[in-house]
Parts: sequence; C-alpha cells; structure tokens
Amino acid sequence: MKKGEQVTIHDIAKALGIDSSTVSRALNNSTRVSKTTKQKILDKATELGYQRNTLASNLRTNKTNTIGVIVPRISRNFFSSVISGIEETAQKAGYNVIICQSFEDFEKEQKLMETLLSNRVDGVLISISMQTETFDHLMPYLNHGGPIVFYDRPCYIENCSSISVDDYKASFMATEHLIENGCKNIVHFSGPQINPLYKNRKRGYVDALKKHGLNFNENYCLESKLSENDGIVFAKEIIKMGHIDGIYSSNDTAAIAAIQYLKSKGVNIPKDIAVVGFNNDPISSVIEPSLTTINQPDFEMGKTAASLLIQQIQDTSFKKTSKVLDVELIVRQSSQHKKV
Amino acid sequence: MKKGEQVTIHDIAKALGIDSSTVSRALNNSTRVSKTTKQKILDKATELGYQRNTLASNLRTNKTNTIGVIVPRISRNFFSSVISGIEETAQKAGYNVIICQSFEDFEKEQKLMETLLSNRVDGVLISISMQTETFDHLMPYLNHGGPIVFYDRPCYIENCSSISVDDYKASFMATEHLIENGCKNIVHFSGPQINPLYKNRKRGYVDALKKHGLNFNENYCLESKLSENDGIVFAKEIIKMGHIDGIYSSNDTAAIAAIQYLKSKGVNIPKDIAVVGFNNDPISSVIEPSLTTINQPDFEMGKTAASLLIQQIQDTSFKKTSKVLDVELIVRQSSQHKKV
Repeated sequence: MKKGEQVTIHDIAKALGIDSSTVSRALNNSTRVSKTTKQKILDKATELGYQRNTLASNLRTNKTNTIGVIVPRISRNFFSSVISGIEETAQKAGYNVIICQSFEDFEKEQKLMETLLSNRVDGVLISISMQTETFDHLMPYLNHGGPIVFYDRPCYIENCSSISVDDYKASFMATEHLIENGCKNIVHFSGPQINPLYKNRKRGYVDALKKHGLNFNENYCLESKLSENDGIVFAKEIIKMGHIDGIYSSNDTAAIAAIQYLKSKGVNIPKDIAVVGFNNDPISSVIEPSLTTINQPDFEMGKTAASLLIQQIQDTSFKKTSKVLDVELIVRQSSQHKKV
Repeated sequence: MKKGEQVTIHDIAKALGIDSSTVSRALNNSTRVSKTTKQKILDKATELGYQRNTLASNLRTNKTNTIGVIVPRISRNFFSSVISGIEETAQKAGYNVIICQSFEDFEKEQKLMETLLSNRVDGVLISISMQTETFDHLMPYLNHGGPIVFYDRPCYIENCSSISVDDYKASFMATEHLIENGCKNIVHFSGPQINPLYKNRKRGYVDALKKHGLNFNENYCLESKLSENDGIVFAKEIIKMGHIDGIYSSNDTAAIAAIQYLKSKGVNIPKDIAVVGFNNDPISSVIEPSLTTINQPDFEMGKTAASLLIQQIQDTSFKKTSKVLDVELIVRQSSQHKKV
C-alpha cells in the first residue's frame, strides 16, 4: 500500500498474511472468526488507518452526523457566540460541527456550499454574506434534499427555517433612546441595504425619528461593511458635518472605532455626541465611556438554529418555521447625553 | 429519485428520457454529443444537484482541496487571527478551509480527527487542546499519509512540522519588564503544565526572577485554563496574599478579568499592582489602564502554518521543519509601576 492511498481490507489481509474474507468477517464481528484473530485484525486496521464504513457508508446512507456552518466571519464576537450555541446543541445530539467562513464574499460562499455538499454534511446553517442577493448556489444542496436553516440574516426561501432577532424593534428602541436623551441630529451607521437585516435596522431608525417629529436626512445614513476602519471614516465625516449629537451604529465594532477616534479629537462622549451600538461585544463594557448597545440572545440563537436543523434532518416532514427572538437595550454611559 | 439520495447519471438520463451513456459522455465533454444536448444535460445535472467527480473522484485521487483546522476555541482573538492567516494562504493556493473547535477537550479532539479523516481533508492544522497528553488519535491520519502541522502549541512528533512563538523568551521579557518597573512579588497566571507552551512560559518567568535575584515561590504560580472566571478567582487570591505588586498572565483574557476585579475593589493599577498580559487582544488597548502585553505574529503564524502544510500536501518529500517566530513586548500603562 502506498502512503496517501485509501486503506482497504485487502491491505489489512496482506499485512497479516490472511484472507480478505476473514478480515471482512472480523470487521463485521462475525462469530466465524476467533476473538484472538479479531483483535489482531482490529489492531492492524487501526495501525494502518483503515476507516471502516465512513465514506462508503456515507455514500450508502447519506448520513455523516456532521453539520456544516457558514459564517461571515468567526472573529466577530456575535458569530462566535452563535456558534458556541450551535456546538452545544449539536454535541448533545451527537453531531460534529464544521465551520467555514465566507468573509462576506459571495463567490467564496458559493464555493463553500460546494465543499459542504461534497462533504455530505447532513444539514447546513448559514448566515449569508453581505454581498449575497441571489440564492441559486443553495439550490443544488436543497434539491439534493439537504436541509438549510438561516440564522441571524433572514432569507425568505420556501421550505427553509430561519431564526433572527427583531432588528426593526431593536433599532427603533436604540434610536428612541437617543432621542429621549436629547439627541436631535442622529447619524445611523448602516450595513448593506441589499441585506434584509440592515434594511430592517434602517427602517427602525427612520420610524423612530418620524414618531418623534424629527426629519429623516438620507445623508445621515452612512452605509458600509461596518469595519473598524469604516467607523473611523464615518467619525471623520461626522466631525466635518459639525452638528451631529448622536450616533446609532448597526454594530459595536464601528461604534467603538468611532468613539476612539472622536475622543482622540477632543470630542466628549456622551456630552457632545451620544453613541449606541449593536451586539453587546465584550469590549463594549470595557471601553470608557462604556457603550450602550443592543444585546442579542446570540448563544440562544445558535442553540435554536441547530435544534431546528437537527429536527429537519431527523424528520423530513418537520414543518419549517421562522423564529424571531427578542432583544434588549443595555443602557451604559455612552448614551447619557442629556444635560441635567 | 427520492429526496436525500445521491443523484446519479441514471437520474439525469431518466429525467431527460435519454440514455445514461449519453449523459456520461456529455459530462465527460465527449465530441460524440451535440452542444445543445450537452447544455440540456448540464442544466438538468445542476437542477438535480448532481455532484460530478466529487466523492467518487475523492475516493480515487484522495484529493479534496480542503484543509481541516482544529482550534481550541474560535472566540479567542489570537486563534481567529491565526485562522485568518491560514485562510489567506489557503485561498491563494486554491484550498478550502473547514474549522472545528475542540473546546480544550481531548475526547472532542479525538472525534474531530475522525471527522476530518472521514472527510478526506488533504491536510490538518492543529493546535492541541490543553488536555492533550497523548497522540494516538493522530496516528490513523498520519499512517494514512495525511500531513499534520502543529501551530501555536508545539508538539514533538516525528515527521510533523510545527510553528510556534518563542514562549520562553516572551515570558522572560514580560517578567523582566515588571522587575525593571520595580515589582518584587510577581504572581504568574499559568496554563496547564502538561502543555509545552505553558511550561515554556513558566520557565521564562522563573528564569527572569532568578536572573534578578528574586526568589521563586511556587505559590505564586496560579495554574488554570485562563478563563475570565479564572482571572477573577486569582484576583481574589492576590488580594488575600496582600503583598503582591505584579501579575504576569499567560493570556489577556485572565489579565483583563483580574484588572477589572481589582479595580472594583479599589486596587490601583499599576500603582499598587502592575500587570502584563499575553496575546495583544483588541480589548487590551481599550481597557483603562491599557494593558502591557506580548504581541504574537498571529496572522503570520497562520500563513506560515498553511504554507508548510500545503507544501507537504503537494510534495510528500518536503522536509519537515519547526519554525519559531519572534514576539514583541507592547508597553502600555498597566505596567508603569515605578514611583518616580
């Protein structure tokens, strides 16, 4: 047997100088093979790296007890917490989890779906990339009978379950909180509007302004991928604008980068500009002033997503559902704008 | 064809009402099939989710163009940066990356090795769990000819490349820095001593004390898995000890948790107790006082690890190497202990 080649029962037979049929019988635990011989064969099989039943059996039964997760980026705390929830539920149900990152890139996401399909994962959990507008790349997997559950970023495809938070309500709460704290000129750091999640967040912001009789100004909506660098670029724009007194950012990453830049330029947070973020990243409670933010039940979201998927894997007649989880506003120092 | 079953060329043939041999010829791009028919067959194949060549071809060539990564925990910033480096190099070389978390659990790590073996990944990058003392679980993969490269946590297995940082030197530098800033009673937050990485860090700490004529006190070595909670528990012990003026922690997570607890109890950092961490997590520059810490070339480590692995995949005669990367001490406020 050459290194790198698939080990077969024939290799085991050859190595032990016995017949292949004996090896096959031993591996199938037949009573026709003595205990001693069985043990010898099992030892040699392990030594050679023989993988009994795995690939061949996967081809037969199409079950691998593996769940594939596509995530935009594991470095975001929100996503790594969701994945922790997924892993907990999967582990309890006896599934292994393999994780792939799309890096918010549509082409990469397409390739990953192919990889997961060819790895025959029993189901896929996906949070689509910020670039994803079409869903043809999911069809081969779905047509093949593989279940997909969307998490965080909702996606309206027939026969797919999804789980997300009430982004509209969260944004409404965040914006209203800034208004109630005396802000009148509130900028919104928004994500790509092709994504329903960021669309819903923007809607919540706009409607809260309307409710309180504030004008909506399209120039106050700064759209980006919400990276650290985007936060700094936006902070510079805000300084140029000159009269902004509030920021509601669609994530903590950009909010924190903006706070740090604004502080370095002598802007007082929250006296001059109040800030609310989104995600409740660990860093949000450590930065000074601490960041008011939206807390999402990330771990819970992961657990529920995995549970929906596993139910679908185990029971193809399982009714598809869309779940929306509630969020909470965590009020800290960065939004205490009102001068008493 | 039932949902969930492997799509074959026969299913495509049946769906189109043509002969299987024609489908086979078309998929092999034979000139004996007209362009129009070829297109029809390809369209139907896509629609049905037919996976040409993947599994069958994997069994034949044993190549999947996929790299498996086992990581203790993706939520640690250090590891997610290493993985970013891995992904960059893999992407350029045309490999997909699948990531699995061991959660520092040996049993889980064993299962993941089985999953990666049965998924036929072309190579494995692994940072072993804190519990891992034996390496039998890697043998089936290695015996099968699959290359393994160790990253971050060095592991001395013949024929395996590894890449790590100079943990001894880093620790020596960190401890010496505290001593030079006037600390005399320095506690070390240490990881499990079964792991060479944490052993090396402890050695560096001990030797720096010796060099400067300070006594080494075994009670000052507090061993744990270095979680947030461990940091808090250690901070409480330090307050009880009463005379500690320095902390050198083997990671930022525990260091930051300790700083926050100590601050809440009225301890002045760095005047009463100076602190040095390890990893340069993003949070370390945001916390007040900002944390002096060791910066590791994490992204670089990932890139090099992937490159070593890919060279081994593509050239089995590639000579195995151990690389040790240099680190730097980033001096911030938390270690400015000396009263001038």
